[in-house]
Parts: sequence; C-alpha cells; structure tokens
Amino acid sequence: MKPVRVGLLGLGTVGCGTVNVLARNAGEITRRAGRAIEIEMAATRDLSRSRGCDTTEFQLVQDPMEVVENPRVDVVVELIGGEQRAKALMLRAINNHKHVVTANKALIAVHGNEIFAAAQTKNVMVAFEAAVGGGISIIKTIREGLAGNRIEQIAGIINGTANYVLTGMRDQGREFAEVLADAQRLGYAEANPSLDVNGVDAAHKLTILAAIAFGIPLQFDKVYTEGIGQLTRGDIKYGCELGYQIKHLGIARRNGNGIEMRVHPTLIPKRRLIANVDGVMNAILVAGDAVGPTLHYGAGAGADPTASAVVADIVDVVRALTTDPENRVPHLAFQPGALASVDIVAPDMFETAYFLSLTAVDKPGVLADVTRILGDLEISIEAILQKEPPGNENTVPVIILTQRTRERHMNQAVSKIEALDAITRPVKRIRVEHFND
Amino acid sequence: MKPVRVGLLGLGTVGCGTVNVLARNAGEITRRAGRAIEIEMAATRDLSRSRGCDTTEFQLVQDPMEVVENPRVDVVVELIGGEQRAKALMLRAINNHKHVVTANKALIAVHGNEIFAAAQTKNVMVAFEAAVGGGISIIKTIREGLAGNRIEQIAGIINGTANYVLTGMRDQGREFAEVLADAQRLGYAEANPSLDVNGVDAAHKLTILAAIAFGIPLQFDKVYTEGIGQLTRGDIKYGCELGYQIKHLGIARRNGNGIEMRVHPTLIPKRRLIANVDGVMNAILVAGDAVGPTLHYGAGAGADPTASAVVADIVDVVRALTTDPENRVPHLAFQPGALASVDIVAPDMFETAYFLSLTAVDKPGVLADVTRILGDLEISIEAILQKEPPGNENTVPVIILTQRTRERHMNQAVSKIEALDAITRPVKRIRVEHFND
Repeated sequence: MKPVRVGLLGLGTVGCGTVNVLARNAGEITRRAGRAIEIEMAATRDLSRSRGCDTTEFQLVQDPMEVVENPRVDVVVELIGGEQRAKALMLRAINNHKHVVTANKALIAVHGNEIFAAAQTKNVMVAFEAAVGGGISIIKTIREGLAGNRIEQIAGIINGTANYVLTGMRDQGREFAEVLADAQRLGYAEANPSLDVNGVDAAHKLTILAAIAFGIPLQFDKVYTEGIGQLTRGDIKYGCELGYQIKHLGIARRNGNGIEMRVHPTLIPKRRLIANVDGVMNAILVAGDAVGPTLHYGAGAGADPTASAVVADIVDVVRALTTDPENRVPHLAFQPGALASVDIVAPDMFETAYFLSLTAVDKPGVLADVTRILGDLEISIEAILQKEPPGNENTVPVIILTQRTRERHMNQAVSKIEALDAITRPVKRIRVEHFND
Repeated sequence: MKPVRVGLLGLGTVGCGTVNVLARNAGEITRRAGRAIEIEMAATRDLSRSRGCDTTEFQLVQDPMEVVENPRVDVVVELIGGEQRAKALMLRAINNHKHVVTANKALIAVHGNEIFAAAQTKNVMVAFEAAVGGGISIIKTIREGLAGNRIEQIAGIINGTANYVLTGMRDQGREFAEVLADAQRLGYAEANPSLDVNGVDAAHKLTILAAIAFGIPLQFDKVYTEGIGQLTRGDIKYGCELGYQIKHLGIARRNGNGIEMRVHPTLIPKRRLIANVDGVMNAILVAGDAVGPTLHYGAGAGADPTASAVVADIVDVVRALTTDPENRVPHLAFQPGALASVDIVAPDMFETAYFLSLTAVDKPGVLADVTRILGDLEISIEAILQKEPPGNENTVPVIILTQRTRERHMNQAVSKIEALDAITRPVKRIRVEHFND
C-alpha cells in the first residue's frame, strides 16, 4: 500500500519527539500499519535544521497554512498549541478533507464540539489521544475498550507537574513555592506553570474524559477547578499521619443529581494504588458497571510519551481511511446525535468527605462547639487529630476527618465554625475520596 | 442501521454475564456503536431457562453447531472453553464467514496461528480481548494504543487465583494448601485449580501478550512455566523483610539473545505499583521505547469484567465490518506477513536477579564457602539475611539476594552450593525483578 503522508504543525518538543519516534520505529510501525508513515512537510517558525530531530527528509516551511493546504498531505498533526490559531488551522485542514491528529487539550476542551461537528460534515477524523495522559492510551481505553460499560466514575492524576510538586513537598517536607522553583530549574515545570498548578490544564483534560465517558458534550466552563497553591507541608504531613496521601485529582462521577466535574487537591487512603503514583507520572482510575475499577498508569507528558500517542492516532486514522464514516469510533465515543443532556452538578451539591484544618485557641469547650456544629448538620466525624501548639503560640491545630456529606452542608458548617470566637483563622478544607465504593 | 445479531456458544458464568451486560447497558452500547447488538441464539447443554440471566429474548439450542450454521448470526461469541471442540466450532464459523469473539486463552495460545490464518483467508475477524486480563483492555492497548513503540518488556499478574492465594499467604501467614482450600470454599479458586496455580493459565496469556507485543507467532510451547505450589510462608515473610513482595508474574522481554518468555514467582520491590496489586486483581506492566513504563490494572476474571471485554470486542467487530480487510488491526498486531522469527531465549540464558533460600548447618565458614562460589561465577551479592535457627534445630535459614546474572551461572552456583557438606537441603531460588531499568 502507498505510504501515508503526514504534515506537521510545530516542531517543538512533541513535534521533534514525533519525528524521532516515526524514524526510530519506522520498521515496527510499518509492520503494524501495513504501510509506511512518512512526513511530507513541517511548519516551524525557526527554519534552521539544528534541533533535536533530523529534518532532512522533509520540507520545512514557516507558514503552517502551507501544510494545511498541501494536497500531498493526508493527515495534519497539530502540535503548535494555543487556541485561536490552532483552531483556524484545524478547521481549514478539515475543510480540505484532511484528517487531523492533535495533542491540544485546551483546543479540544474549549472548541471540540465545534471542531467535531465540522469534521463530521466533511467525513474526516480528529484524533486526540495525546491530549490526555500522554501515551497511556486512556482515550482509546474509555472510548473503545470499555464500550460495554456504563461508566460510573473517573478520577485521575492528569497533570505531571502538579504531581511532581506534591510529591516533592511530601518527600522533602518543603513548601509549595520552594518545590515549584526547583521543578522549574530541573525542567519538570514550565517557566509559566500557572495552568499546571492552578488546575486549568487538568480541567481541560477532565472535560475530555468526562465527555467520552458519560456521552455528554464538552463543557469546560462547568468544571469546578481548584489548584494546589494553597496546600502547605502541614496539610500533607497531617494527611500522612491519618493514613492519606494528597493528590491533585480530576474527578468526574455520577451522583443522584447528574454528573460532578471537579479538579482539586484530594486526600486518598495510602493503600489505594492511585495514592502511590508519584513524581511526574499520571494515572487514571476508571470504574465501569461491568468492569469494576481499573487503573491506567504512565508518563503523562514529555516528547516521546506524547509522540507515542500521536503515532498511535496516525495509525488509527490510517486504518479507518476506508471505513464508512458511520462505522468509525465517534469522536466523543457516543454517536454525535446520541449525546445526552445530563445536568452538571453545582458545587454545593457535590458529595464528598472532608479533611478540615482548624486553628483554635487552646481552651476547653472548643472541640465540643465544633463537633456540635457538625452534628447539627448531620456531618459524621471519622477522626480528630489535635496537635501540640507550634512554638509559643496559644493556638493549636485541629484536624478533623468527616464522612461523606453534601458540600452545601459543609459550607454552612464552615461558616458557623469560623464564627466561633475560639477559631482564629479561616478553616482550610480539602476533599477526601476513598475509592472503595 | 440494522442490529448486529450475535450467536452465543455457552451460557455459563461469562455467557450469562454477557447476556446481562448487553441487556443492562443496551442503551449506552447502542449510543456508542450506532446500532443495537441483539442475541439471536445461544447454545447450552441445559435448556432450562432458570439461570443467572434472562434468556427469554432469544432461542436456546443444545447443539452449538446450530448457532455456527445459523445464517441470521453475524458474530459468534465462543464461551464454552476447552480446545478441540471450541476449535472445530470456531473454524466452522470462520468458514461460514462469521466473525468470532472469544474468551478462550488456551485455544488462542495453542491454536491461534492456525485460526488466524483461516480467518485471514475468509476475511473475518477473531477478537480475543477477554482472553487476557478480563476487562482491562490490555490487548487493545498493546496492539493499538502503543502501535508507535518498540515494546521492550511485559510483566503481568495475569492469574487472579494465584494472586489471591499469594496475598492470603502473606496477610494470614498461612501455607499454600490452606489458603488455596479457603479460596476454593469462597469461590475464588475452581474445584480444579491446577492450571491457575501451576502457571499454565498464565503461560497461555503470556503467549498471547508476547506475540502482539513483539510481532512474533504464538509459541506457547516455548514459555518457561513455574507455579506457586512450592512457595512457603517463610519465603514470603523473608521477602517482605528484605523489602519485596512475591507475585506470580508472566514476563516477556527482549534480551541480547532474543525474547525471554517466562512465568514464575517473582520478588518485586514493595515500592513498585505492581507489587501492591493484591487479591484477585490483575495488572500488566508494559514498557515501550517511546511511552516508557505503563501499568494497566483491573479485574482479570469474573462474569461482568470478562463480559465487558466480550462486548467491547463485539462493538469493535461491528465497526470494522465495512473496512477493507487490509486496513483492519491485524490479529497479532503486526501484519500476518510481517511476523518476525526471533529466537525465544532458552531458560539457561535468562537474565535475572535471585533470592536464594539455604538451610545451612550453624557453624563457621559456611557463608564464606557460599559467597566464594557465587563470587567465582561473578554473581554479585546484594544482601544476606541470616535468621535464628527455628526451635532446637542446629541448622539456620540463610537468605541471599543477588544482582542480575545469567541463569546458567546460577545453575552452576546452586549445584556447587548444594554439594557443600554444611548445606542440608536443596537450595530454593526465586527470581527477582526490579523494574527500574
């Protein structure tokens, strides 16, 4: 069969990774796909040939539109990132009847509904495995491997930078800002790490996972998002003492009122596998009604792991070239006409357990007041940990673990607790998930 | 689109699970596949309708050949198990141009090359996701999700019964036979658990994983296979003291001389995720040159998890109905004409580290003799643990952890050690893998 010709938009880290993997594993890939995959043209601002990959076998251009308009290109691989320009290029490629592979999670999460609709009318595929979990192949697993299931829950460590920082805070007993600065120095965090640590990157990814798991449209604007910047080494230490690890999770789950979509720091019992996923690694827990709980672990970023997903997508696209469009795997796992309109649950209706960190004046009766407030709101207490006062202060840290409750009730409880005279600072709360149901 | 009509061979645990999942999730499955999946006919020895699933919507027959010959059946799902009869039925179905889905690992591992060749000539698909790792979707992940990689290594806990027994031995401090008897009583082990505990079931599964990972034909007869029946609670306890868990692994990896395929008890450092996979759960570590290490975890058996894989395969087959056969995912991941003839490494050329358990007379000089033997064969020692003599005996248990060596050298060392006067029993050896390379 004749080779498939790829046009690359972007020759940065992932672009060069893709060039390298296609070259290094050309033999294996051709043996699998039944035909060669060849790069025809790549667009890059810097036309110098000295970079982390060999560009001598294909044409380099500065204008990405040249790639998108090139009639010799069968599949466009979009790796320039960003939203507006990438979107325009992708829509143009689709309009030219080219299939598209992308690693751009922001673009898919925010503009995916529009992009997939365009692809549908032109009968082309837009593949985006590299957008979530690097090379883990989590999109394929949920969309195809678990096609027989009603998915109940997804919970993932889907941002390697945030996980690296949390692991460092725990292992080194240091504060957020110090570990983040180290991570930047070592190349594990970008110069501007805000999307990684404020949860927006994870929210993009969760949007995509939730859509393909539950058969709902992409709804990035409805994800509740909290970053890791407010966590202290004390939170992590007290969590550990109680038998928990703190991970930054993206969670999407059905509850009685619809689907919860939330990204936030989460305490997880140490004995759960996902609690033991450290450093830059990613892992996604997927629970289906037939398969039960499953976990999928691997590198969530980096040149080669992301390229692994890009190449798998190219092979997938190649295989489906001769399929009837109606028999292809739908972009969002469910047929475009069969997406469900399910309510996205408002934060005050979330159901979760809590870790509360209080600072209280060290005098009798405070704990009685706090537990009465919780009891009145029918919030059950799982454990209380009262620590020695640090230094000469006359306040003591009090840690409370609660059982599951509605966030609305917890909001009321926290207001009342903070109104107590003996409580000297705002109550810190971190959600707790047990993953045993 | 018109429904796809399925014919079931077998209505046991997995057969009923499949009926239940197809009925319970009919809505979600149709929304994904774009058409309904309906059971047309099922073959079962016992025609009574009282069983764990509702059989009122389809015809029951006793002769499975009726299903295979039924012109209304599009896809045959083979769930009767065993080799010869299942093979005859499957070949007949293929001959009738029907696609086949199976959970039969023994059949695929032993007769797969022949079955796939037949399927190839008739342009039909034989899907077998349910044969390995239940609903984890490991076949799809390796075959499609990691298509851009040169796979370096696979290591899996792929028999839930064996893992359940090992977990019980560790947690309860009891011996193999006692825990196995419990497992049988509780339904976690079959009345005849021999294929589970002697490693043959795992060897079937490893055969399949190795073929699709490395692009080699199925070669069950070349898998080195060791069961768990020789393990004692002492082995597990001493392993734990040294920081290791013992798991029954199927390992397939490249070494300088070809591909190693081996099933045996294995010590793994406790901090590895796969060392923490307990009870009946399965997990498969797959390392590719681009993606790096990945782990895929879930229930490896049971009615619903296996049905999850069967249904996913049916949906996959349905999607590929209109593909050119040459564009389909090849049965063994690589194009039939592109399978490689790679040497399967003989056991004496395996490369691994070892845990050695010696029983030595408690007198000076024994350790010096043993370490000299190992040193002469250039086997480096990682750790030595000498235990108190149990009770009144004058022998002591000595545990030695070695670094990686060739099995041939270890065979020589063990012969020499056993020839020492002070060594009173055969040396017990268990392989050690660190999974950090």
